[in-house]
Amino acid sequence: MAFDYASVFRSAIEDITAEKRYRVFAELERVAGRFPRAIYHGASGKREITIWCSNDYLGMGQHPDVIAAATDAIDRMGVGAGGTRNISGTNHPLVSLEAELADLHGKEAALAFTSGFISNEASISTIARLIPECLILSDELNHASMIEGVRRSGCDKKIFRHNDVEHLEDLLQAAGKERPKLIVFESVYSMDGDIGPVGKICDLAERYGAMTYIDEVHAVGMYGPRGGGIAEREGEMGRIDVVEGTLAKAFGCLGGYIASTSDIVDSVRSFAPGFIFTTALPPTIAAAATASIRILKASSAEREAQQRQATRTKDVLLARGLPVMPSVTHIVPILVGDPELCKAASDRLMDKHDIYIQPINYPTVPRGTERLRITPTPFHDDRLIEGLAEALSEVWDTLGIPYADTDRAAAAE
Amino acid sequence: MAFDYASVFRSAIEDITAEKRYRVFAELERVAGRFPRAIYHGASGKREITIWCSNDYLGMGQHPDVIAAATDAIDRMGVGAGGTRNISGTNHPLVSLEAELADLHGKEAALAFTSGFISNEASISTIARLIPECLILSDELNHASMIEGVRRSGCDKKIFRHNDVEHLEDLLQAAGKERPKLIVFESVYSMDGDIGPVGKICDLAERYGAMTYIDEVHAVGMYGPRGGGIAEREGEMGRIDVVEGTLAKAFGCLGGYIASTSDIVDSVRSFAPGFIFTTALPPTIAAAATASIRILKASSAEREAQQRQATRTKDVLLARGLPVMPSVTHIVPILVGDPELCKAASDRLMDKHDIYIQPINYPTVPRGTERLRITPTPFHDDRLIEGLAEALSEVWDTLGIPYADTDRAAAAE
Repeated sequence: MAFDYASVFRSAIEDITAEKRYRVFAELERVAGRFPRAIYHGASGKREITIWCSNDYLGMGQHPDVIAAATDAIDRMGVGAGGTRNISGTNHPLVSLEAELADLHGKEAALAFTSGFISNEASISTIARLIPECLILSDELNHASMIEGVRRSGCDKKIFRHNDVEHLEDLLQAAGKERPKLIVFESVYSMDGDIGPVGKICDLAERYGAMTYIDEVHAVGMYGPRGGGIAEREGEMGRIDVVEGTLAKAFGCLGGYIASTSDIVDSVRSFAPGFIFTTALPPTIAAAATASIRILKASSAEREAQQRQATRTKDVLLARGLPVMPSVTHIVPILVGDPELCKAASDRLMDKHDIYIQPINYPTVPRGTERLRITPTPFHDDRLIEGLAEALSEVWDTLGIPYADTDRAAAAE
Repeated sequence: MAFDYASVFRSAIEDITAEKRYRVFAELERVAGRFPRAIYHGASGKREITIWCSNDYLGMGQHPDVIAAATDAIDRMGVGAGGTRNISGTNHPLVSLEAELADLHGKEAALAFTSGFISNEASISTIARLIPECLILSDELNHASMIEGVRRSGCDKKIFRHNDVEHLEDLLQAAGKERPKLIVFESVYSMDGDIGPVGKICDLAERYGAMTYIDEVHAVGMYGPRGGGIAEREGEMGRIDVVEGTLAKAFGCLGGYIASTSDIVDSVRSFAPGFIFTTALPPTIAAAATASIRILKASSAEREAQQRQATRTKDVLLARGLPVMPSVTHIVPILVGDPELCKAASDRLMDKHDIYIQPINYPTVPRGTERLRITPTPFHDDRLIEGLAEALSEVWDTLGIPYADTDRAAAAE
């Protein structure tokens, strides 16, 4: 008898549903000029809500100059690129974008991909594979796309404890100075909002002769005087061999990239199947991203406003005793600690308060640390922050989610 | 002494340069409303050229309605989606696009990705991994993205000779009816322009209890009464389990997709890292693609004009004795058979004749079958075809590239 394929997929879905891991995507319609307001297409019709979990951290996706660059490119050049990079797809705005990115990071060259995921996967695997007997040293909390890149390289790997430079040093020492080594890590870890010890990792890389590959997707546009990221802010850009970033978060568009030496960029360009065999980014996206990068290179007002509102959000929520997890960045995680409660809190925020914050559950974060991950932008003004605090308190009280400071919580009741 | 990393990448580049495989990307600026004309940004400045190798097969990337849909979405919703599908990125136009795609293929559901590459890689690997002890049967000429998907699944695999249903049957028989099996193949193979035996493969799949996964990236929009692809044209859509397609070729935009049963789509949605951990397609791309699909569902004029001009191109080139490789599709490959000559022919077409056709060399095609791959569109009118034929003859004569029919070539001299 033939195999029953349908049942395989049915039970896969049933299993994650039983584990409360089945994800329902919220259908949204952003409103340019009114960010972070959006129209939510729910089961009972459409209504206006406030997004509190966007990765468009600075609202650049709706910046008038970014919109103008995007529509102008479409009017002049059409929508798609029309081919892979090699076969008619290398459009003029994309070449300009890559020059802009190289300049942003003070590197010789840059290469754009259709996503940050594929840029990590393709670049890490290609770079590591070209280095004979390469040993990869990878932070244990690295993003899924980096893990895929490491896996795909087929190289030996050692995982070091999160941001633990002593553990990293032990592993480097054990490998020996002669053996080629690639350290892959992030600057801003987006689920906790902590920052990797960039300078110390560079020190170790120099001491033990390792290459450095940093993922700055949650930092580019957000940190450093020109938005070059944490490595720029800390004056370490020159010691990083490969920077990986995204155009889809602070820059408000789509796509990922690397910046490095000409030879490394050229090698990834020439050998990575995930780059070679894929249609190029459209002129409109490239033009919009370039506009966005240029704005954030020249102006720190957006970054400062964002930091101010993020700090204010943390302060206001902490004052109410809400369990804000420690974060030194623009990301404000609130601990729930249970997947069902986390989902219920998110649902209640949407249904009762017109506030959209996606629950973050396993496998994105470890079990028991389920959370609401809040990303204030410059457009989340003080009134919105006050409304968020009130809504969260109501949800915490109603669902009985633990506060950080039980005295304060009791007093508030 | 520490390892010399720079030399690794330097020699990787030197090696492919020595092998004449170093790729130089042509920098182009398409001109909406004047497709296939474009501005070429060359070493000696800018000039107008004609693109003869675009994968925007029907010129839909510049269709006024597609452009209008794209700019309207940007004006209303901004540029980027602002997040992954799960975290604020599921935009309304993207949900509409997926409904449109499901309808196009007569399936329960569809799922969009940022590229065709990632849609194949993520879907094949996820589907095969969920099926216990799955054996994958894969056509030997499958696209790099499918090969990556097969590899990533970690499943056993057997490669069948290109389009050879007898060989496929042998392998199915050897595996036995009980063992779960997934057949992965393409409809239109884009480098040769031949077509897979869809009906016969479905017959075998039914006989031996296998699932079918078809890549229709070069066929969607191009074949079938509504542009559903070869499977639609041949009445086999209902027997295909998973259809994979692209929005970046005939539909003129960006991104890839699958269409299948709700459970299979939901499984890929829920388990594929390449889908989960990546920013959603922007509203502008989703809206443009939806407009494009709807136009090509309702109208066959574009397909017919394209077929007419492709046939005419083949006829005109054959009449001159140029070595047009046999192709039953819209793709017109011309054999050169040598990588250096192929590059030289492409360079001379651009430099002397303002015609852009990228050389196709190893590893995209086997060594010895290097070629120029021509893709006529409805916008390549008879005059352009005539000009192409004259230019190719001049290049063939000057470089001494073999004609198909030596008598005719001699007579022409």
